[in-house]
Amino acid sequence: MNINPKVINQEISLIRQISIKSKQYKDVIDLTIGEPDLPIPCEIVDQTTLYMKNNRMGYPMLGGTPEIREEIVKFYNTKYDSSYKIDEVLVTAGASEAISTTMRTILNEGDEVLIPLPSYPGYLPNIDFNGGKSIFIDTISDKLQLTVENLKKHITPKTKALILNYPNNPSGIILSKKNLDEIMDFLRDKDIYIISDEIYSEITFDDDFISVGKYDFLKEKIILINGFSKSHSMTGWRLGYILTSKKLRDQLIKVHQYTLTSPSIVSQYGGYVALSKCSDISSYTKKYKKRCEYVYNRLNSMGIVTLKPKGTFYIFGSLNNFNIDSSLDFALDLLENKHIAIVPGIVFGVEGYFRISCTKSVEILKLAMDKIENYIEKYKS
Amino acid sequence: MNINPKVINQEISLIRQISIKSKQYKDVIDLTIGEPDLPIPCEIVDQTTLYMKNNRMGYPMLGGTPEIREEIVKFYNTKYDSSYKIDEVLVTAGASEAISTTMRTILNEGDEVLIPLPSYPGYLPNIDFNGGKSIFIDTISDKLQLTVENLKKHITPKTKALILNYPNNPSGIILSKKNLDEIMDFLRDKDIYIISDEIYSEITFDDDFISVGKYDFLKEKIILINGFSKSHSMTGWRLGYILTSKKLRDQLIKVHQYTLTSPSIVSQYGGYVALSKCSDISSYTKKYKKRCEYVYNRLNSMGIVTLKPKGTFYIFGSLNNFNIDSSLDFALDLLENKHIAIVPGIVFGVEGYFRISCTKSVEILKLAMDKIENYIEKYKS
Repeated sequence: MNINPKVINQEISLIRQISIKSKQYKDVIDLTIGEPDLPIPCEIVDQTTLYMKNNRMGYPMLGGTPEIREEIVKFYNTKYDSSYKIDEVLVTAGASEAISTTMRTILNEGDEVLIPLPSYPGYLPNIDFNGGKSIFIDTISDKLQLTVENLKKHITPKTKALILNYPNNPSGIILSKKNLDEIMDFLRDKDIYIISDEIYSEITFDDDFISVGKYDFLKEKIILINGFSKSHSMTGWRLGYILTSKKLRDQLIKVHQYTLTSPSIVSQYGGYVALSKCSDISSYTKKYKKRCEYVYNRLNSMGIVTLKPKGTFYIFGSLNNFNIDSSLDFALDLLENKHIAIVPGIVFGVEGYFRISCTKSVEILKLAMDKIENYIEKYKS
Repeated sequence: MNINPKVINQEISLIRQISIKSKQYKDVIDLTIGEPDLPIPCEIVDQTTLYMKNNRMGYPMLGGTPEIREEIVKFYNTKYDSSYKIDEVLVTAGASEAISTTMRTILNEGDEVLIPLPSYPGYLPNIDFNGGKSIFIDTISDKLQLTVENLKKHITPKTKALILNYPNNPSGIILSKKNLDEIMDFLRDKDIYIISDEIYSEITFDDDFISVGKYDFLKEKIILINGFSKSHSMTGWRLGYILTSKKLRDQLIKVHQYTLTSPSIVSQYGGYVALSKCSDISSYTKKYKKRCEYVYNRLNSMGIVTLKPKGTFYIFGSLNNFNIDSSLDFALDLLENKHIAIVPGIVFGVEGYFRISCTKSVEILKLAMDKIENYIEKYKS
């Protein structure tokens, strides 16, 4: 299991490389995109356009409008058993800015940030840019579960933060209660920030996802990140938030303020509507679940092993049963031969895997699975 | 003329201090706010809401949608005699993010950034955060004109950039053609970036504002910043842009991307409408000019000397004729006694001055001037 930080580092260009190449083929099925295909639900657009016609839209309050912060707190505390207050929320320009602002605020030269693999690659440049060092924790042999034993092995005096991203991109895996409990308990007396990127929290298929926000006794150390891009298909609105202690928020808000003053007030109103009137997206979750199960079953039946996702709209397939060295070569060859675009595992820090995004209808996914099944034949020997 | 970078450094809290204090008085006239009071002009809101109802609003193209970038280039090249191409525009989350992204991209530890005073104070934290050093150039004795002689005195081997902010906040002054020509000519063979913050370019009262974009031979060194907050009253939309060489844009876009992916696609559409259908804001400029002239005449007649603004909606009054040591004390005392809120000059790096924002109707400005006239009597001795 080869881990090359430098390659991960350049992943966004790797994904783009595949994306650009895929545009050569008119009949391409693009399964690379981490963007919901379902429309913005409920009355979000209608209410926001109404707001725009009737309000001035001046500079929003620094850190987020009181209205959206109140809804965020209410939503999280009710659904995820946390105990945040309105002055412990910082509204950001997407989860991306939340990650960037977090890293810029907490990192000093040489600080180590622990990242369980496979991992969304967007953390790395923000760690690099701020003089931090990414320390990868391979979780492949534990079925993508981060265990406290594995975590302990990677702790050093320089460890500044641990990133948790569950439901996980690219695998859809969530941590078991046992593992999460043990990790949180272990971190109780450590000076280590817990950055919990819960951007896929709303897209879970059962009721077993536990937010890190529940571990109230660690609030001073927890930087919880979430947003509206995945749950409410609001990617283009660039809206997210950080939940943390007031003390840390007072520091984060300085970096946030001098970087961009605030996120768009239009987007903030949209987010307010999303939480106050459209927080139930179970019809969407059902759709993603159905698609993921379909792809999961098809891949398993053709010998491509995957762990069954518990959330997100991704499937992370293993090429273990086949004689394939490079996931990038595999992805490029599949694209050339069958005009199916997928993301190679190396983008997420592990070789021998690939990610499929189930942001297409079951009909299109069926077509793609048929083609992959036909293609993979040549590796069976 | 005492210059204290540390005080400037904390100005935003100083403005806030006055703003919070001013809320104690129900009849306060708040002349501190750098935010247009006029509504968003023309069909921007209508067209944008229509767009929202009929489009998906997914992730925008990295660096800005082609539509808005095309309009920006067309607008700037036509109006300001520049020669930018579509791949030389980076669309940002307001001019604030443009400043932040610029400083993060170009600055190394110890780099010096030249700032003519008086200056908008938002540059400083972004210079500090990135290890840069702000070097102030006092322009008071040159009637707020930056001359090449004065500039030369401040150049060292560590000089990395010169910030130009004309029309100037807080004074409304623009550089004369002679001074600008000489400065640009002097910088021709220097390795110094020219950061030109032209956010008030559309609010000018005559036809004599020259954009730095005109100095085509310096394109590799010019980082031109502008946006929609002041011209189109779109402060809450957080939309701005950088015009520069393609080579430098390729570097800026990395920082931009990992910080926030992109500005809101809704805002980008609004900006597209602003430039393609609503670029003529002369009726607004006329209003600001009328207000500024009124305040200018009133202040001068009561012995408060000001340079006549050539643009913006600010007036920068001098307390030279009065026995007043601290502009902050003056501002606080005026607020307490007359319930008029202004910004003390120290916020902009110079003592003995104050800024009035003409973002109120002439009727309200008249009331404020009457009160200031009455108040200032006690200092006449």
